[in-house]
Amino acid sequence: MSLSEDELIARYFAPLAGAAGLALKDDVARLTPPPGRDLVLTVDALVAGVHFFAHDPPERIAAKGLRVNLSDLAAKGATPLGFLLALAMPPDVSPAWLEAFARGLGADARTYGCPLIGGDTVKTPGPLTLSITAFGSIAPGRMPVRTQARPGDLLYVSGTVGDAALGLALRRGATPTLSEPYRAHLLDRYLLPQPRLGLAAALRHAHAAMDVSDGLVGDLAKLLRASGVGGELDLRAAPFSDAARAWIAAEPDAIEIAATGGDDYEVLAAVPPDAALGFEAAAAQARIPVQAVGRVREGEGLNVLGLDGAPARFARGAYSHF
Amino acid sequence: MSLSEDELIARYFAPLAGAAGLALKDDVARLTPPPGRDLVLTVDALVAGVHFFAHDPPERIAAKGLRVNLSDLAAKGATPLGFLLALAMPPDVSPAWLEAFARGLGADARTYGCPLIGGDTVKTPGPLTLSITAFGSIAPGRMPVRTQARPGDLLYVSGTVGDAALGLALRRGATPTLSEPYRAHLLDRYLLPQPRLGLAAALRHAHAAMDVSDGLVGDLAKLLRASGVGGELDLRAAPFSDAARAWIAAEPDAIEIAATGGDDYEVLAAVPPDAALGFEAAAAQARIPVQAVGRVREGEGLNVLGLDGAPARFARGAYSHF
Repeated sequence: MSLSEDELIARYFAPLAGAAGLALKDDVARLTPPPGRDLVLTVDALVAGVHFFAHDPPERIAAKGLRVNLSDLAAKGATPLGFLLALAMPPDVSPAWLEAFARGLGADARTYGCPLIGGDTVKTPGPLTLSITAFGSIAPGRMPVRTQARPGDLLYVSGTVGDAALGLALRRGATPTLSEPYRAHLLDRYLLPQPRLGLAAALRHAHAAMDVSDGLVGDLAKLLRASGVGGELDLRAAPFSDAARAWIAAEPDAIEIAATGGDDYEVLAAVPPDAALGFEAAAAQARIPVQAVGRVREGEGLNVLGLDGAPARFARGAYSHF
Repeated sequence: MSLSEDELIARYFAPLAGAAGLALKDDVARLTPPPGRDLVLTVDALVAGVHFFAHDPPERIAAKGLRVNLSDLAAKGATPLGFLLALAMPPDVSPAWLEAFARGLGADARTYGCPLIGGDTVKTPGPLTLSITAFGSIAPGRMPVRTQARPGDLLYVSGTVGDAALGLALRRGATPTLSEPYRAHLLDRYLLPQPRLGLAAALRHAHAAMDVSDGLVGDLAKLLRASGVGGELDLRAAPFSDAARAWIAAEPDAIEIAATGGDDYEVLAAVPPDAALGFEAAAAQARIPVQAVGRVREGEGLNVLGLDGAPARFARGAYSHF
């Protein structure tokens, strides 16, 4: 790459800039926050070889970088406002790679109404690293924080869980007997998270919520610990996809990957029983499936019931990218 | 490091968290923006071996990471509100390193009233990389953007310029005849930028402003280009420190390092002549030296006059970390 930083920004990123980004001609973004709303801010860093494969399509890397942040906003019921990108590039990044990366980023920015408003591009002798800061707005006092789950709350999860971790296992060479469409489904779920921004109305009914980035079992244990409560998870109720079920039927141990593996980016919510109907109705209106998978109780610790209804123990509690 | 990410955050970073950071127990920060103010957002990434030396004291690396962002806020006259940290750590990061890094970050967060409110920590097989997103607030419509310099404006710069680039040259083995206090001054200026947040009142008088991160000559050329104007810079008026002057007196070519080298983090401002007195008075009240070094004119391009009053040409226009 012989482009200067300014040329690179002008060519690839300025076309994506929202109004607050000042055409990326400045070092800063200027934003007039929506009056009377709170702001929600989140940052996630992704490193090639750690959080994605360096040779994944650049459009997908860009999309994943943005979507894991949008998923954090989604879990809080926030409306996206924009994002900033810090991109550390190794010397072998080509113009074609950058063009595809910017195209993927721009497509998702439009899809989710979350424009690029600023950033920084630097050289690195290490792996490609992207760090995205996304921010959104929310009605004051309405954000379901992680620490407010209460005994009696029902535990809900959106979509399906375990697919991305099974997809990653495929990437790493696992060889289950699985149809091609099932394989494709799992691989796609690893590569491309679906941020559940449509759950915003439903989450007004929740005491606590977070996105499932490090696996259902581990993230639920985190939510309970942060709230100072215990709980039960019944994997017989967990929403596994047909593809995941087929794999688990052929290899029962795969339940451990599905229950504890990361990268789902679904939403986990603790909802008081008298608000369960409102939560489910709002999710249904948004056409996002949600499933009650457990319950909060007093005390501490997470008890997991396996597919046979007996207490299950897994070697690893939470998937950790760290 | 055998700590989990959650343990690491709880031990080293949660003690630094501002109220908006929700004790870092959540994936997001929640901020109520100051009513009636605009937000200013900026992000800067720093890579070990590119933007700092990997073996620099961790407190200083943390402080530099925060201060280069605060410098962007300062150049817009913004009041800091908080920051998010994304930290990619190689395997050899030790608890002692992290403790010192967090200590340095916390000290500066207090000094500048800019609390940590969120972040992400990840592993990397590459060099230590930190990406900080800082945000502040400003009165609506008052931000001096880079694109609004107008013919006739006086060009001001704060503090002294060139010290950091000369300090970096020392780190890289340059051997000028310089007293020990002068050497120490230059080295310190490289290691530890001083964000000029005190210039906020003065900058209300400016048409355009930016911080000088890539060298006086190059950044001024950028500001003029972004504004669609030309200008003159007279290096006889440039604020060089006694240490820089001593070096330049001994080795006249060092003027090129001082005039084009990066990492000053001073503020460059284009001020209309009838506001010059107000600008200078407000800077004086903040006890921040400012110096008129040139003038904006119609047309394009930057003409530089050297210390001898004759047109100067430098091999490199702008220092680029990129």
